[in-house]
Amino acid sequence: MLARAGSDVVFLMRSDLAAVRARGLAVKTPGEEFVLRDVRAEATPEEIGPCDLVIVALKTTANGDFQRLISPLLHERTAILTLQNGLGSDEELARLFGAERVMGGLCFICVNRTAPGEVLCIEPGSLSIGEFGRPASERVRAVADLFSKANVRCHVGDDLAWLRWKKLVWNVPFNGLSIAAGGIATDAILADRHLEAEVRALMAEVIEAAGCLGHVIPRAFIDQQIEHTRPMGPYKPSSLIDFLARRPVEVEAIWGEPLRRAQAAGAAVPRLAMLYALLGRLARR
Amino acid sequence: MLARAGSDVVFLMRSDLAAVRARGLAVKTPGEEFVLRDVRAEATPEEIGPCDLVIVALKTTANGDFQRLISPLLHERTAILTLQNGLGSDEELARLFGAERVMGGLCFICVNRTAPGEVLCIEPGSLSIGEFGRPASERVRAVADLFSKANVRCHVGDDLAWLRWKKLVWNVPFNGLSIAAGGIATDAILADRHLEAEVRALMAEVIEAAGCLGHVIPRAFIDQQIEHTRPMGPYKPSSLIDFLARRPVEVEAIWGEPLRRAQAAGAAVPRLAMLYALLGRLARR
Repeated sequence: MLARAGSDVVFLMRSDLAAVRARGLAVKTPGEEFVLRDVRAEATPEEIGPCDLVIVALKTTANGDFQRLISPLLHERTAILTLQNGLGSDEELARLFGAERVMGGLCFICVNRTAPGEVLCIEPGSLSIGEFGRPASERVRAVADLFSKANVRCHVGDDLAWLRWKKLVWNVPFNGLSIAAGGIATDAILADRHLEAEVRALMAEVIEAAGCLGHVIPRAFIDQQIEHTRPMGPYKPSSLIDFLARRPVEVEAIWGEPLRRAQAAGAAVPRLAMLYALLGRLARR
Repeated sequence: MLARAGSDVVFLMRSDLAAVRARGLAVKTPGEEFVLRDVRAEATPEEIGPCDLVIVALKTTANGDFQRLISPLLHERTAILTLQNGLGSDEELARLFGAERVMGGLCFICVNRTAPGEVLCIEPGSLSIGEFGRPASERVRAVADLFSKANVRCHVGDDLAWLRWKKLVWNVPFNGLSIAAGGIATDAILADRHLEAEVRALMAEVIEAAGCLGHVIPRAFIDQQIEHTRPMGPYKPSSLIDFLARRPVEVEAIWGEPLRRAQAAGAAVPRLAMLYALLGRLARR
């Protein structure tokens, strides 16, 4: 969307590179279809070189490649925006490249890559972005403006960590139980009264942990999230899709890191601990 | 073993009936092999009629058949000994047929039916039996004596409920996690430090619940159980074997009924609640 709106975007690609160079990038949304013929795509960060903004959309399971992938992209004032799931990427990027470079964001979207160079966006949704460890700045507002002008709804938040914990309130139970209960969608979870009770109990644990860490989320958020999920029907959380496709599951970002922070803060999170242990093993098949 | 030792035993059989009538009952133990040629086996309880002792070895998932299966076997002083897993069978038999008839027991054995009429006993182990809801009586000692004389080690206990909770300390975590972690044996559970921690935490919950119900089990029992399990190697708990064979899993007896009693007694059992919810769904596949 940024490229179509005129930003100078370069894509770092792996398996999609040849297809995109040959045929461009095809995007299908609920409202429109278009093909970007002349997108610039490269196979290595060295071919891209330093740029003003690095958008990180890797799976967190590939975060071990940060140094190799991002270092060649940096000049003195390059900003880094990670749109990755869960907890830990902001801190890892800050550790490697300096906290002042790092912004983070959450994607409330539903999008799949259906074939090399083909993107299907089922629900455009929105982004929420913010600075890492400080309130929103002019820089983050400028990035949000770029997205908005490119027709991507983008909110700016003053508390990135609070936004991340709020998203975990949904991801921890639904992504986790969809795998641990045998590969079932959100509607099947909510159709089982014992599993729905576990969703609510896990949400309460995440809210409790967030509160111990200074991120206050009201308990009423639980009912809201459940009622928001019911109309979604047989929705498969991204972790379940990864699991069923035998791709790596983001176990550490979504369950491991929140668990470690909760325990360090003294929060009681027995269900989260058990879910993490089960998923760690299930994802290793 | 009782039949071989001279007791007048009648077997109520389903799928094994024809094989046993044609070829007898073949038993293989670590120490010996023998075939009982003339065992009496029937297809219905009516063909058996009233007897002095009814030994109940059904899966608890078939407890709905108690009335139909057991009523024809009773005379005024018939005793009933249930050797079933978990909690709930003693009470159900007491409700249906009178508490004074009921004795219960636990089997610490490893035995499989390898073919119709063929029993493989890998580990003869022992039984522990007791009266339901009262201390050991002459009657229960007489039954233990029958077993002992038949070369089956049999202990008598004064507190059947305590014995059942003690066995649950092992069954709740190992039977449960072996299924929920993707179908793995006890050695794989203990090889994963997060899963071992969950085993210990679940054991602590069961001990806490038992304590709230007046059945005191020392915390040191946890270490003992773990160390007792390590040398067992790739042992598959009975529930896992049932699960993998797509037979009904005893979810209510091993997790559901203990959970309900723990909650009624005010014990905090979050991990047990989550395991029960997951197994309830997984077992329904």
